[in-house]
Amino acid sequence: MKVVGVDLGGTKILSRLVDPVTFRSVGREKMSTPTGGPKSVLDAIVGLVEQLDGAGEAEVVGVGVPGLVDTDGVVARCPNIAGWDSPVKVKTKLEAALGRPVVVSNDVNCGAVAEHRAGAGKGVDDLMALFVGTGVGGGLILGGRLVVGSRGMAGEIGHMTVIDDGRVCGCGERGHLEAYAGRAGMQRESRRLAAAGRSSKLTELTSGGPIKSRHIAQALAEGDEITHQLVDDSVKALAIGIGNVATVLDLRRVVLGGGMIDRLGQPYLDQIAGSLSFGGFGPTVCDLALAQRIDDAGVLGAALLAADRIEG
Amino acid sequence: MKVVGVDLGGTKILSRLVDPVTFRSVGREKMSTPTGGPKSVLDAIVGLVEQLDGAGEAEVVGVGVPGLVDTDGVVARCPNIAGWDSPVKVKTKLEAALGRPVVVSNDVNCGAVAEHRAGAGKGVDDLMALFVGTGVGGGLILGGRLVVGSRGMAGEIGHMTVIDDGRVCGCGERGHLEAYAGRAGMQRESRRLAAAGRSSKLTELTSGGPIKSRHIAQALAEGDEITHQLVDDSVKALAIGIGNVATVLDLRRVVLGGGMIDRLGQPYLDQIAGSLSFGGFGPTVCDLALAQRIDDAGVLGAALLAADRIEG
Repeated sequence: MKVVGVDLGGTKILSRLVDPVTFRSVGREKMSTPTGGPKSVLDAIVGLVEQLDGAGEAEVVGVGVPGLVDTDGVVARCPNIAGWDSPVKVKTKLEAALGRPVVVSNDVNCGAVAEHRAGAGKGVDDLMALFVGTGVGGGLILGGRLVVGSRGMAGEIGHMTVIDDGRVCGCGERGHLEAYAGRAGMQRESRRLAAAGRSSKLTELTSGGPIKSRHIAQALAEGDEITHQLVDDSVKALAIGIGNVATVLDLRRVVLGGGMIDRLGQPYLDQIAGSLSFGGFGPTVCDLALAQRIDDAGVLGAALLAADRIEG
Repeated sequence: MKVVGVDLGGTKILSRLVDPVTFRSVGREKMSTPTGGPKSVLDAIVGLVEQLDGAGEAEVVGVGVPGLVDTDGVVARCPNIAGWDSPVKVKTKLEAALGRPVVVSNDVNCGAVAEHRAGAGKGVDDLMALFVGTGVGGGLILGGRLVVGSRGMAGEIGHMTVIDDGRVCGCGERGHLEAYAGRAGMQRESRRLAAAGRSSKLTELTSGGPIKSRHIAQALAEGDEITHQLVDDSVKALAIGIGNVATVLDLRRVVLGGGMIDRLGQPYLDQIAGSLSFGGFGPTVCDLALAQRIDDAGVLGAALLAADRIEG
């Protein structure tokens, strides 16, 4: 059996023709994400699938999207896709255009499934995959199964309160993990500090533009004090958040990926691990691991979730 | 089909012969928990089952225990049962004595299953049952299934960090939910305050003995300032803990039970609900409900989990 996986991102759309048993890609196509709204995006996806698998070899198509997906494959909104601010029946529309079953999933959940079956979570049936970039998102595998939650929103660890009455998050609430560990939250805090007269190397490196993970890595390497403080704060917040989820769900492993983790790497993971405390009286059994499917987690996971639907 | 359910508690053992479809008990027996160690407890359970179902009508026996249960039915330790401080092969021993399959489960998980199928969680497939008494424990139903975790320890919300660098918990770590919302934590704090010269009504009502839920209710009713503060602190901690779990797992409902909840009732629940904030951008869909199976949650849940093993 072959499956097509599609990973819809804010800047590009990746697609692969995948063997869901060996995880090997036997074909790949990509393009920039159209900016003309949901219809232009769906047309682009149809075009990619036809380019990749015109012969219809794949029985099913899996699509990962950066937004909230309900059980009928309706995508409520994708904050990072231009013009996608009301619900779109992605599954129904793509099935009509492609003439085969389409499985639509959240992209973070796709990443978690890919790490579980073909990455750093192989053989571990109770795990969280945590992606740290502009924001912080997570996907949960419990008892070997992806957990989606009552509305498809499970895994939203970025909005866990880790510091009571702490920093304001992008969502408006206080003390959330994402306000400390997400790049957007670190950027807000560094600008607040700069406005209060405490400029950092980050202000200099970005000259008012968005902070990228490489800027943070560079400022750290150059020994910038405020950047070290921001990163220490993120470590504390991640350690509390990961410790909480690992305790409540009795996890065996947390896999960390995303731009910030890819850039700061194992030393950052070691710093988080050193700050972890697991609650209760049980021995510590949860470890941390770097994600392994750096570029293809989304596209592979989308394909695997689609294959499940055929097999299951 | 009939099933025997057994609920092993620190002071008494309850047992019932249950119809797992109608949830009705067609027979019940109970006794005080023996204090002669695990063997005396297992003998007592065998005696109760034989009294209740000498004819062997029940195909299977479910036992809920207040301790950590592994997948082979070995119970590591039960802090509240005299002499139970090393692992006991409960399943193997009871099966040998009773001549039928025995399913051993954690008592809090039994309670969660009973509330899900026959209590305040009926029809809700993503829920947590939270029990607040001396300590704080929880059981999780996700996608309609009980989540046990990698070691059978899932649901340990009492040891979630809710106040960074906060009060010391019974486990030695800081800022855990149980340190604020469990009776033992409230007792430690009230004694600390009393030693510092701030005696409360609780000191007077308990005259050095353990604080019971009714003491807290009485001191509250009499307008004791410190008790009000302790309860407000517990509300804040519960609101953070519940909000965090509901956000990460996208829960639809949290069912609250246990001695403190039974005593303080709906006004306490309303206070917690008023302090809840759900992270992220989704609409709030998680509600709070009082547990409904006050006396028989453990025994019914143990029976239902045993029946599953036969049917499943």
